[in-house]
Amino acid sequence: MAPAKKGILERLDAGEVVIGDGGFVFALEKRGYVKAGPWTPEAAVEHPEAVRQLHREFLRSGSNVMQTFTFYASDDKLENRGNKLSFTGAQINEAACDLAREVANEGDALVAGGVCQTPSYLSCKSETEVKAILKKQLDVFVKKDVDFLIAEYFEHVEEAVWAVEVLKETGKPVAACLCIGPDGDMHGVSPGECAVRLVKAGAQIVGINCHFDPMTCVKAVKMMKEGVEKAGLKAHYMVQPLAYHTPDCSCQGFIDLPEFPFGLEPRILSRWDMHAYAREAYNAGIRFIGGCCGFEPYHIRAVAEELAPERGFLPEASEKHGNWGAGLEMHTKPWVRARARRDYWENLKPASGRPLCPSMSSPDGWGVTKGHSDLMQQSEATSKDQLKQLFDRSKSQ
Amino acid sequence: MAPAKKGILERLDAGEVVIGDGGFVFALEKRGYVKAGPWTPEAAVEHPEAVRQLHREFLRSGSNVMQTFTFYASDDKLENRGNKLSFTGAQINEAACDLAREVANEGDALVAGGVCQTPSYLSCKSETEVKAILKKQLDVFVKKDVDFLIAEYFEHVEEAVWAVEVLKETGKPVAACLCIGPDGDMHGVSPGECAVRLVKAGAQIVGINCHFDPMTCVKAVKMMKEGVEKAGLKAHYMVQPLAYHTPDCSCQGFIDLPEFPFGLEPRILSRWDMHAYAREAYNAGIRFIGGCCGFEPYHIRAVAEELAPERGFLPEASEKHGNWGAGLEMHTKPWVRARARRDYWENLKPASGRPLCPSMSSPDGWGVTKGHSDLMQQSEATSKDQLKQLFDRSKSQ
Amino acid sequence: MAPAKKGILERLDAGEVVIGDGGFVFALEKRGYVKAGPWTPEAAVEHPEAVRQLHREFLRSGSNVMQTFTFYASDDKLENRGNKLSFTGAQINEAACDLAREVANEGDALVAGGVCQTPSYLSCKSETEVKAILKKQLDVFVKKDVDFLIAEYFEHVEEAVWAVEVLKETGKPVAACLCIGPDGDMHGVSPGECAVRLVKAGAQIVGINCHFDPMTCVKAVKMMKEGVEKAGLKAHYMVQPLAYHTPDCSCQGFIDLPEFPFGLEPRILSRWDMHAYAREAYNAGIRFIGGCCGFEPYHIRAVAEELAPERGFLPEASEKHGNWGAGLEMHTKPWVRARARRDYWENLKPASGRPLCPSMSSPDGWGVTKGHSDLMQQSEATSKDQLKQLFDRSKSQ
Amino acid sequence: MAPAKKGILERLDAGEVVIGDGGFVFALEKRGYVKAGPWTPEAAVEHPEAVRQLHREFLRSGSNVMQTFTFYASDDKLENRGNKLSFTGAQINEAACDLAREVANEGDALVAGGVCQTPSYLSCKSETEVKAILKKQLDVFVKKDVDFLIAEYFEHVEEAVWAVEVLKETGKPVAACLCIGPDGDMHGVSPGECAVRLVKAGAQIVGINCHFDPMTCVKAVKMMKEGVEKAGLKAHYMVQPLAYHTPDCSCQGFIDLPEFPFGLEPRILSRWDMHAYAREAYNAGIRFIGGCCGFEPYHIRAVAEELAPERGFLPEASEKHGNWGAGLEMHTKPWVRARARRDYWENLKPASGRPLCPSMSSPDGWGVTKGHSDLMQQSEATSKDQLKQLFDRSKSQ
Repeated sequence: MAPAKKGILERLDAGEVVIGDGGFVFALEKRGYVKAGPWTPEAAVEHPEAVRQLHREFLRSGSNVMQTFTFYASDDKLENRGNKLSFTGAQINEAACDLAREVANEGDALVAGGVCQTPSYLSCKSETEVKAILKKQLDVFVKKDVDFLIAEYFEHVEEAVWAVEVLKETGKPVAACLCIGPDGDMHGVSPGECAVRLVKAGAQIVGINCHFDPMTCVKAVKMMKEGVEKAGLKAHYMVQPLAYHTPDCSCQGFIDLPEFPFGLEPRILSRWDMHAYAREAYNAGIRFIGGCCGFEPYHIRAVAEELAPERGFLPEASEKHGNWGAGLEMHTKPWVRARARRDYWENLKPASGRPLCPSMSSPDGWGVTKGHSDLMQQSEATSKDQLKQLFDRSKSQ
Repeated sequence: MAPAKKGILERLDAGEVVIGDGGFVFALEKRGYVKAGPWTPEAAVEHPEAVRQLHREFLRSGSNVMQTFTFYASDDKLENRGNKLSFTGAQINEAACDLAREVANEGDALVAGGVCQTPSYLSCKSETEVKAILKKQLDVFVKKDVDFLIAEYFEHVEEAVWAVEVLKETGKPVAACLCIGPDGDMHGVSPGECAVRLVKAGAQIVGINCHFDPMTCVKAVKMMKEGVEKAGLKAHYMVQPLAYHTPDCSCQGFIDLPEFPFGLEPRILSRWDMHAYAREAYNAGIRFIGGCCGFEPYHIRAVAEELAPERGFLPEASEKHGNWGAGLEMHTKPWVRARARRDYWENLKPASGRPLCPSMSSPDGWGVTKGHSDLMQQSEATSKDQLKQLFDRSKSQ
Repeated sequence: MAPAKKGILERLDAGEVVIGDGGFVFALEKRGYVKAGPWTPEAAVEHPEAVRQLHREFLRSGSNVMQTFTFYASDDKLENRGNKLSFTGAQINEAACDLAREVANEGDALVAGGVCQTPSYLSCKSETEVKAILKKQLDVFVKKDVDFLIAEYFEHVEEAVWAVEVLKETGKPVAACLCIGPDGDMHGVSPGECAVRLVKAGAQIVGINCHFDPMTCVKAVKMMKEGVEKAGLKAHYMVQPLAYHTPDCSCQGFIDLPEFPFGLEPRILSRWDMHAYAREAYNAGIRFIGGCCGFEPYHIRAVAEELAPERGFLPEASEKHGNWGAGLEMHTKPWVRARARRDYWENLKPASGRPLCPSMSSPDGWGVTKGHSDLMQQSEATSKDQLKQLFDRSKSQ
Repeated sequence: MAPAKKGILERLDAGEVVIGDGGFVFALEKRGYVKAGPWTPEAAVEHPEAVRQLHREFLRSGSNVMQTFTFYASDDKLENRGNKLSFTGAQINEAACDLAREVANEGDALVAGGVCQTPSYLSCKSETEVKAILKKQLDVFVKKDVDFLIAEYFEHVEEAVWAVEVLKETGKPVAACLCIGPDGDMHGVSPGECAVRLVKAGAQIVGINCHFDPMTCVKAVKMMKEGVEKAGLKAHYMVQPLAYHTPDCSCQGFIDLPEFPFGLEPRILSRWDMHAYAREAYNAGIRFIGGCCGFEPYHIRAVAEELAPERGFLPEASEKHGNWGAGLEMHTKPWVRARARRDYWENLKPASGRPLCPSMSSPDGWGVTKGHSDLMQQSEATSKDQLKQLFDRSKSQ
């Protein structure tokens, strides 16, 4: 029997870098197993081989955490989707736990049970009702004995706090992530204040996932860290951003971009963008570094390769990857061989091949009034600040 | 026992649309099983579950052809790669055949054994030597009884003709694809003339794969078709292009773009681009329509969905995909619900989120003289001619 | 004899819109009379016909203010320029006053004597020395009896306050403009605080000129207005921005953009951008609305046309301009006639015709360390906020 | 009395470079004296000081030719414009001649009387009627004794030939320019064939003006030269292109671009683009090199500066212009000083500051069918062919 693995808190307390996994719903949508719109994870039961294979690819790429594929798997969400499912929430959650555990056992990875925001909260159900919904998923996680728990993808810190309170009852380590940016949650609570509330509710790890690009998420986690430290509290930090460039999105993130979700291709980060992200996150003091929507296995591998000096080893999948493009060294064309070096890829400004397309979009649904959206078009205002200011003004008029 | 499947020629003769699969080396590189640079397919032996899963995803997405994962699996190429492999060429080719057959049997797909251009030809070995190298792969295909054969990714029609001659000896149907654009092969032989030579050598299906974006490849296949018809010959036509926008590449294709192979992300086609491609290919009289590097399962699904009216059915994976974004109809935000319609996605000009990047690049290694590359930078000349051509074509329809 | 014209304060007190002129040094550089680098105005003596003609074009376009062409005409600056001039500062300043007066008398325009920041201040001369330098220009303005005075293009509020103090001694109305953005002056004094200091020093009109695009400048003037009102003070407000889009510039403005000053063409605002600017400025409560570098006569005309409803009349040059493109109504091609309408031009997203160029740049000279500039390239950070944050971090490391 | 100037043919026969002037209608539209739409030159009478000043600026910038400001000044065109003019065609043409002569006498410039295509031809009037219309302008040119004649801006070679025939009757040297690109005139006559017909009709100088960007126009003139030489004829060559980048325009030129005429700003060429153009034209054997719409005085100066080694002198306006940005050498910021060098400006890829805008447009009115315009949007096909052509040309040099 293998020696017991170190737990998530042991690792973080020891200063280790923990690498998360990538985005299951987006990757499996492209592979044909998840439907965009509902985004529910019934594939865990319907097509376990596909889910298992994706877990395995992330493991090979360096992930230390196999998150159960239980996004939007609360009963209220599953009932909400367009067409009926043939499986109960419990069946889906159990299958997801089994798959995560099976692959985690193939390497040095932990299993994290994940819950996220609920339709119940958004439709203004009571704290008791929301907690009851979350509790049902949690019962499966306890039964399947996951290694720790993650509450993620919450737009409202209030619901995230409720989630943490429920998760804490299990006695397992709890991580909590909001899907917010530097402007704070949907009620305007700042990242720093959000983090303080989550830590006070008992989360040992706090951070950000989804909705924004890596640099924006890292920035927001830094604001969380500052808030926590200013309050005299302590926590570990995590970040699991999008793999899409979103310099142009508003406070509600990439959902509002006109390209969401079926035209995001030109925004996909390259592996070299991921190197920069991993370094930036590490320098910010974040030690649980992973990805969310858009992250494919090679993105996670890039994170693991960037942080190989700190971790002391390369991921398994690097056997199929030369360092900074070194695999090109044997190419027959000299100008392709010339690309087998770090500064080439670091400095490349990749073209889109789309001369009829712009480089940034105006987020939808963002200005309330017609007048505002006209204004946006006229002014070509771009930086988020400017957009935000215009938005604020339009509200105050 | 299931009734025997219709062969490739029976299908094409009957006017059916045959949908190919997507790009294995690029997809598996991102999943961590293929090394960019060598691009060899040893994963068929090392990680069969990964190769099987990708076959399965293409099958679910609508592919009628499981191409054996034998790209660059000729012995001379395998020996050429940087580090030694633990497996013989025969082992790799056999494993690839078994995987393709296993998945083909799960649905209505045929197995196609694939060979491609050899280092032997490029290093000026004789016709006898080149044919001997190809023959070794072929022996495996015969032993494993694949349904038909594809010679693809040839830059020189001379070598492709040799390949067809070897493949013809098996008695199986033979398809032949060059990786050229409208400017012809590397010796300047026009697409029309190339096609004539391939047909005369015995290929029943001719076409183009890789190196250029879909619209460029379709254009080149149309030139092939015109050449064949003008010569009073008959053939079926196929196309398996890149899933990258490459309006700016030179006659040698995407290899010369500065973004190849690790910075191509902003060029990835969306599923809606694929609808346009499938329609364009169909209108051009091409009936074997698939993909090459960059094609993920959802790209193939888009081809199958566009041609569902002609084929009479949707692919299996469409159960996880609403028609033209219909899955968004139940979204909570009204402006996201407003995206659940065809004209929204057809007219979207997706932003790159990369304001520091251009929309087109100058190909490397393309102008021989310094003066030329200066000229390119100064002139920023671009598109009129090609736009004109599309215009002319549209008028002539 | 014509009745005396209303003074600048009478106009503003009465709520009238006062339209400024455009940018002399940039326009005359393109016409061949000003040298980029020194940017000094000796053309007033050397080529008076060229300066007179430009005044006249702005007058025809709607300007109510003929600013003396005395930018960088302080003695210390004139001596500083590369090659010697044949004229004294007094000669240049006098000639400029005469030209402004001559053209002002052709219409309803006032003459404003202008001073700007001095090399003396930047080389740390004393308050007494700086004031003495400014006083020399002022003596000419008094002798030539200009209608009011403008202290503009100051990066440091301290020097601007000194300038206001000197100008106030003349008894003429005084306007004061900084060339700063929302981040404040080069010592970090906020726009609001800057404005308060200028008003307390005696300026009756305060605002922003140069360095940033129109929307950014309007934003900064609004911050000034808020500061002044919060302090219980009163002032009139003015704005004279660049005619270049600068969403990507850092706190020091367009000087740091790689395109400054000889590659700014793709950034030039269209007349329709100017309509949006004029409306935005008016809505912000600004009543002295003009332009700086890049503003050509047709830009000022667009401002005057947008505000024609408020002013009650069109500028003279509108006799050569159809309303919102109405002049195209008689074009022979129907698709060009279709452009003769407001919403066409308001919604147009004009292409650059430069597919090899990006849409935004990274400002030069902005990160101190090499590491920082590398970081910028990797991260593709874009919005000003993000850039600023990176900059701050790089300093604190 | 000054010695007689060398005539246009003497100069060209001697191998001298003759520099043309820039675009009057576009420049004066921005200055407030010409109305876009009618584009007629009544300003020669109404505001002679404005026209004289623009002539003078071009003279100072290096122009050897003062073209009379008589574009669209044929009687049929003048009557055609929206609102009545107070002046006869003869008055306008005479005033224009006087202004051109006055400024030509201030330097080493010749006066060229210009005629262009007529509404009479486009409305299918007879050869006799069209020639009669042109003859009326010509009578003025003879009376005012211009130095030579230019027939320019003809879309149909047939009408241009008629014009040359009329102009030849004066005995003065005749130049003839079509506003076509490499695809030929509106009846599909190739540039080479067009040039042959013009030379046979008696034109001593042939070339291209307007409608396309510099590199495209140079390409078309080269095709003219090849045609003339192949026919065993002899001629001099001229080119006067747009100062706008138009890689995306169709065979009818920039008129069809959605940005025409009020949104062309992002396409304006920089002075450095003009250096490249001047060199390219010179290398192509063209010796009469000027500009058309969009050319401002500084653009002509750049042409004169690029060709200063060949001509042996700099233009007068270069006293206000440092060589390749040398004027920046004394800037206070080191990173701005670093821009005072040739390779900086030659390699700069200037940003548009417009992240919401694309880099290329689809021409209007270009595809006849709806299907076509859809196709264009989908395919985003662009540049390969034209890039290829440049490449081929550069190789053949």
